[in-house]
This record gives sequence, C-alpha cells and structure tokens, in this order.
Amino acid sequence: MIFPESTEEVAKAVAACSAYRIPVIPFGVGSSIEGHLLAVRGGVSIDMTRMGKVLDIRAQDLTATVQAGVTREGLNRELAHTGFFFSVDPGANATIGGMVATAASGTNTVRYGTMRDNVLSLQVVTADGQVIRTARRARKTSAGYNLTQLFTGSEGTLGIITEVTVKLHPQPEAVAAAVVNFPDVKSAVNTVILAMQMGIALARAEMLDSLTIKAINAHSRTTLVEAPTLFLEFSGSPAQVQEQSGTLQALAEEQGGGDFQWATRPEERSRLWTPRHHAYFACIQLRPGCRSFTTDACVPISGLAECLSETVADIQATGLVAPVFGHVGDGNFHCLLLVDPGNLEEVREAEGLSHRLMQRAIRFDGTCTGEHGVGLHKIPYLEEEHGAGAVELMRRIKRALDPINILNPGKVVLVDGDEGRN
Amino acid sequence: MIFPESTEEVAKAVAACSAYRIPVIPFGVGSSIEGHLLAVRGGVSIDMTRMGKVLDIRAQDLTATVQAGVTREGLNRELAHTGFFFSVDPGANATIGGMVATAASGTNTVRYGTMRDNVLSLQVVTADGQVIRTARRARKTSAGYNLTQLFTGSEGTLGIITEVTVKLHPQPEAVAAAVVNFPDVKSAVNTVILAMQMGIALARAEMLDSLTIKAINAHSRTTLVEAPTLFLEFSGSPAQVQEQSGTLQALAEEQGGGDFQWATRPEERSRLWTPRHHAYFACIQLRPGCRSFTTDACVPISGLAECLSETVADIQATGLVAPVFGHVGDGNFHCLLLVDPGNLEEVREAEGLSHRLMQRAIRFDGTCTGEHGVGLHKIPYLEEEHGAGAVELMRRIKRALDPINILNPGKVVLVDGDEGRN
Repeated sequence: MIFPESTEEVAKAVAACSAYRIPVIPFGVGSSIEGHLLAVRGGVSIDMTRMGKVLDIRAQDLTATVQAGVTREGLNRELAHTGFFFSVDPGANATIGGMVATAASGTNTVRYGTMRDNVLSLQVVTADGQVIRTARRARKTSAGYNLTQLFTGSEGTLGIITEVTVKLHPQPEAVAAAVVNFPDVKSAVNTVILAMQMGIALARAEMLDSLTIKAINAHSRTTLVEAPTLFLEFSGSPAQVQEQSGTLQALAEEQGGGDFQWATRPEERSRLWTPRHHAYFACIQLRPGCRSFTTDACVPISGLAECLSETVADIQATGLVAPVFGHVGDGNFHCLLLVDPGNLEEVREAEGLSHRLMQRAIRFDGTCTGEHGVGLHKIPYLEEEHGAGAVELMRRIKRALDPINILNPGKVVLVDGDEGRN
Repeated sequence: MIFPESTEEVAKAVAACSAYRIPVIPFGVGSSIEGHLLAVRGGVSIDMTRMGKVLDIRAQDLTATVQAGVTREGLNRELAHTGFFFSVDPGANATIGGMVATAASGTNTVRYGTMRDNVLSLQVVTADGQVIRTARRARKTSAGYNLTQLFTGSEGTLGIITEVTVKLHPQPEAVAAAVVNFPDVKSAVNTVILAMQMGIALARAEMLDSLTIKAINAHSRTTLVEAPTLFLEFSGSPAQVQEQSGTLQALAEEQGGGDFQWATRPEERSRLWTPRHHAYFACIQLRPGCRSFTTDACVPISGLAECLSETVADIQATGLVAPVFGHVGDGNFHCLLLVDPGNLEEVREAEGLSHRLMQRAIRFDGTCTGEHGVGLHKIPYLEEEHGAGAVELMRRIKRALDPINILNPGKVVLVDGDEGRN
C-alpha cells in the first residue's frame, strides 16, 4: 500500500508497477460494495486519501478542481460560505475520485444529475505512468473522443484518476421537504411520474416500502403510517417552492396519497427527512447480526411499479426479510436482503433472488447496476445487459488503454489473463 | 452513395466495405461545417435520410427512440401533441444521428444541455458490420464503460449510428422572451454570470455584438440600438417566469442594461426573437457575395468577456468584417469572418485570425470547438488542447474499434495510413 501526495508520485508508482507488471488498485475511502477493491491478482493499493487538497474554486464558472482524495463532505465544507455546493450525494462520505470511478449518484440525482453529469475534466495517470488531462474547463466541447466520460465509471481499470474538476450549483434560496404515504407502490410511483411530466423540479424523490417504514418506526421512534411512502424535497425561490410543493400535494392526493406533511424551516426539514437518511441502519436492525446483500436495479420509470411488485412477490416467495427503497425519480431501487451469513441456505436464497432481480431489471430494459458499478460481482451480467458485441468493444478499449492488464485487473470486463478467474 | 432503410442494410454495407477495405462515411443532411463529410480517401457515402422513422415515444419515461435519419424538426412535429419536446437546437434542421455524431448543441443548451446530456442509448454498426446497443433505457447506469458517450461526438470514426434514444422534456407552461442592450460586452456577460450564480433557469441566453445588431437592423428592418445585446428566454410556470424575468431585469439594470423589452404571448415572443434566428443570414448580407468562415471557440464563462474583447481587437487589427455572437451562458461564441473567396490575402487573414482565436480559446482553458466538432479542420489543434498523451489515447481507441481504418478515415484523429494527409 502506498500513500501518494501528488499526481507525480502516482505516476512514478504506476510506471514502476508497469515495468514489473504488478497490478495497481486505487483506494478512496473503501465505500464501494461490488468488490471493486479486492486484489484478485495481488498488487499495490494506491491509497488516495493524502491527495486531499481542494485546488481551485471558481465561483463565476461554477466549477471546483480537487485532488481525487477529497471527500464530498470535505469539498462541501470548503464551499460552505461561497453560496455554492457540490450536488452528488451517494450517502457515504466517498472521495470525489472514487465517485468518478464508479459513476456514483444518489438521492438528488433526479434534479442535479449523476457524477457523469457533474464532472467536467479529469487528470488521469495512464497504464504506462503518463499524466493526461481529459478536457479543458469549458462548459461544453466537441473536441474529440470523450475521454472524461470514458474514465468516469471505469472503476480504476483504464487509468488512475488524480484530479477532478466538478460542476457546482448555487445553494437554493428556499428548500421544502415533504413526506406522504400511499395505498400502494403504483400510486406513489405515478405521483412522481406525473410530477416529472409536469416539469416540477423535484430536488429529491425517494420511495420507501412499508417494511422500511416499519424498520424506521422501530429505529427512530417515529409513528409513520406503515405504507409505501415518498420522501420529497423541493428547492428554488420561496415562491417556486411553495407553488411546486402545492402542485405535488394535489397530484399526490389524486393518487390516494395521505398524511401529507411538509416543512420549510431547516430544523423541521431535518426532522422530516432524518428517518430517510437513517433507513439503511434502521433496516439492518430488523435482523440483528444479519448481513445485507444490497441490490441496485434501475429501470425506465414506466416499468418501475411493475418491476417492484414482481420483486416484492419474489421476496415474499423466498421468505427472506428484505426492505426496499429507492430513488424513484430515476427508476433506481435497492433491496436490502438481510441474511444470516452463517445460514448457507439463506445466503443461496439471497443470491438467487439477486440474480433473478438483475435479469428482471434487464428484461424491463433497465440495468443491473444503477449507481454501484460492476466491480467483481456484476461482471456476469454485462453481456446479458449490453450484448456480447458491446462487451467485446469494452474489452478492446481495456486492451488498448491497459495492454498488460495491470489497472485493477479482473474488474468490469475480463481480458486475456483474467479469463476463468471469476 | 447508398440509401439504407434499416440497420441491417447499414450493417451489410459496412461488412462489405470492411471486406474490401473501402471507407464509409455516414451522411445526414450535410449541415456540418468542419469538413466532416469529405471523402479524403474516397469510399461509400451512407445517406441516412431514408432511415427516418420515429420508432417509439414513451411519455412516462420522457424518452423517444428514432432512426438516425430523423431530423430534429421531424421529431418535434411528431411530439407536437404529446406535451413534450426534444430540446437540442443547433439552428440547422440536422438529423438526430448527425447531432449525436458531432455532439451538437445550440441556443438552449444553457437550460437543457447538449446532445451529450440528451442521449440515453445508441444502436451502432461497428467497423466489422456488427450491430450493438450501447445502453438500455434506464435514466442512469454504472454498468461498464460508457459506450454511449464514446460514440457521441465520434463523427462517424468509431461506428455508424443507426438508432438513437433521446430524452424528452415537458413543454413549459409559460415562456417569456426578453431583449436588453448593454454599454459593453463585459456587462452583458456579467449579467448572465450573475443570473446563473443565482440559479435563474435561463432557457436561452444569446449575446450579439453591435455589428451583428447593425446587420440585423439592415436585414430585418428593426431599430435595435446598435450595442451588445442579450436575447433571453425564460420558461416554467407563469409565476416562475414572471419572477425570474423580473430578477433578470433588475440584474441587467445594475449592469447598465437598457431598453429592456419582454414578451410572453407567442406572436410577440416570436417578433422579439426572430432577429436572433435570422442573425446568420443578416450577417452574411453585410458583404454580398462573401463567404463566411465560422469559428467556434468556447471558454470558461469567467474568461468570456476578456477572450471576446481580445478577439474583437484582433478582428479590428486585421480590418476584416466579422460579426460575433454566441451562446453566452455556455461561454461559446462564433465569429463570422466574412471574406471574399477570390481575395487570397483576405482568406489568409481570416485563416490567421481563426488560428489565433483557437489558440486564445485554449489559453483561456477552453476548447477550439464548442459544438461544431473536429472534422478535418480542427485536427491540428487537438494536441494543443488536450496534450499529446490524451490524443494518443484517442488514437488507440480509434485503432481498437476500427483496426483497418475504414470509418470516416482522416477525421478527428489521424492514425496509420492517414499521416501526412492533412
């Protein structure tokens, strides 16, 4: 394990590893969950946490340039008094470099986009230890192949990201939070679809199923109705927020939504939303001692209600405990399959369920991973999702950019030398 | 020249050309301006205009899937009664496939993004005549390398785009147009920067210099003050539009803006904005019989006023007639260098000016092409913009995806066989 403090040190390390054909695996805070960081062929872990400098904040351009080891909370602390913020929020306090590498997203993607939408330019160390920059800092460009987007989501397999220029957003003048429950998942999803069709700029739109609400009530001592529930956020000018949350309330009521609560003052908003932020921990406590297999399906939103209802039926058939919640505005949802790791039969049931869910997501014209990435675990599904021809193109790109296969080998796509290892 | 009607026909043609090593160049409506379509090594032109079917409109998902030969106006006609529209508007009635290939954008990018931001998935014929799909239809995914963005902006050099799934946007309930002039370019640019910092959702923000306004007055018989002028558009709910245009007016006045005119009714908005839409033709008529060299610099918006003022000084030093206008919210501007094509000295002056402008844009941390693409003409600037290492990665990608170099050879990056041809 090495702890570089500069791009030059990363470049030297990679050049040396290249000369000796030793694998290199970049490491941020370790919050990825698909086995991205496992050294399946050994090698050197490049811990990026000492590359933690915010290099440049340009308020007029709405951009910030940071070293890859800066965390999203760290960046937002530096931005606190500027009137701007960095939007992508995957839950964990991940590094910006790691978030680029996995094309992370999270709760406010529906308004501000994923990491892909918020990265302008990267500095990258290539497989032979050269330093390149993928783009300049203009808001748009048509100058050649889009290397920025090629490295975004490449999970350390095409190059090591050392610096990132991200977009910033103005802090909204006003924010409102709302919580509303529904008789069924379909009416909750429909409410969000209708809002998006009307152009309501939802800042966040999270749906929690009744089991998740039950877990929250137990964990946070709340008394929420145990029914499918939307946690919503609106932002903009005070008038805009008022108008949009009013429209949303009317839409929700038409769909059978009840107990509409909303809040604008920070402490009330926080009270309303805290249960959502604690949902993961609340769910884990449904079965003390359990481990959670977390799935990450994402489908076109028109198929979300049906895909969810098939999934819940499947969960019920297995008898597993598995709360479900997700970023409904993006069609992305997570099942927390709570499993006793010592119970092999349960583990097998969970694996089967997860396998069927990924196939189902693909059948709904969706993806086996909306925001967690491929890592080790999703490799077997890429051909099913993209077809053999598209995956072969990915392999050709991997070979072209990392001919001796030292960059996080055995992840995303398998090339010569990896075959048969997974 | 061939006129395929289906992806299969394109695939067969490319497979045959591959077998005989004959170049293939896809053709939409021919509105690109960087020499993208020139058959520098001969070959077959694949005219996509008979692939003009809108295949699928999904209102709930806000997506449409079209054959590559559908034009943007054609798609919007099909969408007219749905309440949704396709946003990207480069001026010309280009094909959607061509707009993907060049990563096109235009006047409403500041609100709705470029083609890159509006493409979800592509069907592509690869160099060996295989058909692949780059992604499924979920709103986001982390499943492997981003082939969608790699083909977007690849100008026919990595594959032939045959089908495109784009994002749609809800038709705004209300739209307002405004026109306001300024004592100088800097105050006009500052007004837009401040608006963006405040989170005002400008739908369009175009700046025209005083020479462009003079051309418009002559062409459209208007009486606009011949000063740097912003053409603006706001959209949203009626209350939102009213609030945002009011805030903008106050900002503009603080910056010395005068003669603020605004309109909400369609015919008045059209009257106000028509001069902007005719700006290109008005400018051309400043010198009847001339040809226009159109530049395409794009810089971080904080440097825009300075980059523009250096450019205008440079124009004045040459004595050329060259109106300037641009998408100021993106930092992108075009100079129309109006040249008598028979006057070799003028042509050389224009080439020199264009050369210095591209270097200036790069010096301002910007790009030599914001939205027109590389084609033939911008190839010499790619190394200056991206560095030799990044361009070498692009070459490796080209070789990996098109090993015998038959896909629009000699464009974007030069590989073995192309060298010395440009």
